[in-house]
Amino acid sequence: MIEALIFDVFGTCVDWRNSVAREVAAVLPEVDAFAFADAWRGEYDPAMARVRAGNRGYIPLDDLHLENLHIVADRFGVELADPEALNRAWDKLDPWPDVVVGLNEIRRSRIVAPCSNGSIALITRMARNAGLPWDCVLGADLAHDYKPKPEVYRAACAALRLPPAKVMMVAAHNSDLRAARAQGLATGFVLRPQEHGAQQNTDLLAEDDWDIVAADFHELAARVAGQ
Amino acid sequence: MIEALIFDVFGTCVDWRNSVAREVAAVLPEVDAFAFADAWRGEYDPAMARVRAGNRGYIPLDDLHLENLHIVADRFGVELADPEALNRAWDKLDPWPDVVVGLNEIRRSRIVAPCSNGSIALITRMARNAGLPWDCVLGADLAHDYKPKPEVYRAACAALRLPPAKVMMVAAHNSDLRAARAQGLATGFVLRPQEHGAQQNTDLLAEDDWDIVAADFHELAARVAGQ
Repeated sequence: MIEALIFDVFGTCVDWRNSVAREVAAVLPEVDAFAFADAWRGEYDPAMARVRAGNRGYIPLDDLHLENLHIVADRFGVELADPEALNRAWDKLDPWPDVVVGLNEIRRSRIVAPCSNGSIALITRMARNAGLPWDCVLGADLAHDYKPKPEVYRAACAALRLPPAKVMMVAAHNSDLRAARAQGLATGFVLRPQEHGAQQNTDLLAEDDWDIVAADFHELAARVAGQ
Repeated sequence: MIEALIFDVFGTCVDWRNSVAREVAAVLPEVDAFAFADAWRGEYDPAMARVRAGNRGYIPLDDLHLENLHIVADRFGVELADPEALNRAWDKLDPWPDVVVGLNEIRRSRIVAPCSNGSIALITRMARNAGLPWDCVLGADLAHDYKPKPEVYRAACAALRLPPAKVMMVAAHNSDLRAARAQGLATGFVLRPQEHGAQQNTDLLAEDDWDIVAADFHELAARVAGQ
C-alpha cells in the first residue's frame, strides 16, 4: 500500500520551457527565447554533475541557475540588467494543466510531496505561484546532494518515516525512476512528450515496467485510487 | 519587510494537552488522562536536552515520544496494548480554533511554515489531520538538532534563502522567541494561557518587547497585514 507519492517537478509537474522562454522574452527581446531557455536548462545537468561528483560541496540549485544564466548570456552575447530578477523565472513556472487537479485528488488519500533538485526555497515559492498543494517539501536540500544520487530518494523516505516500498516516485523521466527503483521505491511514469518542445526525442515512452504508466495526472490519480 | 513567518507548533498552533488526553482516555480508561498527558509532555524537555547536549546524536521526536510513553506508562503502572498506535496521538492534535483561519489569512501575503521540534513526518501528518496550510515544513529535522539551539532557526532561514531579519518566529513561549531573536529573527508572541490547563503559570504575558504581541492568530494576521 502506497502511503506517499513524491514527485519530480521540472518537466513532470511544471512546463519549465514555455515559462522560462516567456520570462526571457520579456527582458531580452533580441534573443530567440526558446533557444535561450533550452541553453539555460542545458547547463543544468553539467552543473549538478560537478556537485554530485563532490568537486564543490552542495550548492543550492538557485545558485547554479544564476551561474548558468551568466554562462548562457555570455554565449548569446547579451547584457543582463538584473540577473537575479531573471533568475526568479524558475520560481514562476506554470504547472501542466492536469497537475493541480490531479495532485488535489491524490492528496485526499496519500501524502504528496516534491522530490526535486530544486531547493526548498525555490520549490516553496513555485508552489505558491502555481497552486501546487504539497503536504511538505522534500528533495535535494534534505540530502545535500542531487538526484539521481541514492541519498536523495532515501532522505525523502526517511523524512516521511516510511519504508521505500510505501513511497512512489513519480517522474516523466525514466532515469529518475530507475534510480528510485534501485532504492526500493515504487515508480510512476507520466508522459510529458512536449517538455522539450515539438522536437523532443527522449522519454517518449516507459522504458521499463514501471508500477504505473499514465498519460497525465488525471490518469495517475485514478490509478492510485484504484490500488 | 517580513517575507515569511515560521511557527512553533506544540502549544502555539495546536492544543496538545486536550488532544493527547482524549487519545489516552480512549485506550487507558483507568488513568487520569490529563495527568498522563502532562507527564508524557513533561518528559519532552529532558529527552531533548540529552539530544541537544550531544549525548546521543539526533533522534526524531517521534522516537523520543515513544520512549517517553514507556517511561510514563511504567510510572502509572499501566500496560500498553499498542504503544505505537497511542504514540500517533501526536499526529492528531487539534488546532486552536483561531489557527487555520489566521494562517490562511497570513499565507495570502507571506510564506508560512512550521519551525517545530517535531519531525517532518509528524508535522506533515498533523497538518493533514488538522488542516494546517503550510507552504513547506521546516524545523528540527533540517538542523538535526532541537530548539532552542541556534542552528534550528538558522537552518529555517537558510532553507527559505532569507536573511533572519525577513523572517518572524511566532510562538506562545518567551524562551523560543528569545532564542530566535538572538539569531536576528523578528518575533511574534501569541498568548496561549490554557496550553497547560487552567492552572498554567508560565508564558501568561510577553516577557520582552517582541515585535508583535497578539491575543490569537486573528490579531496576529491583522498586525502582519498592517506592516
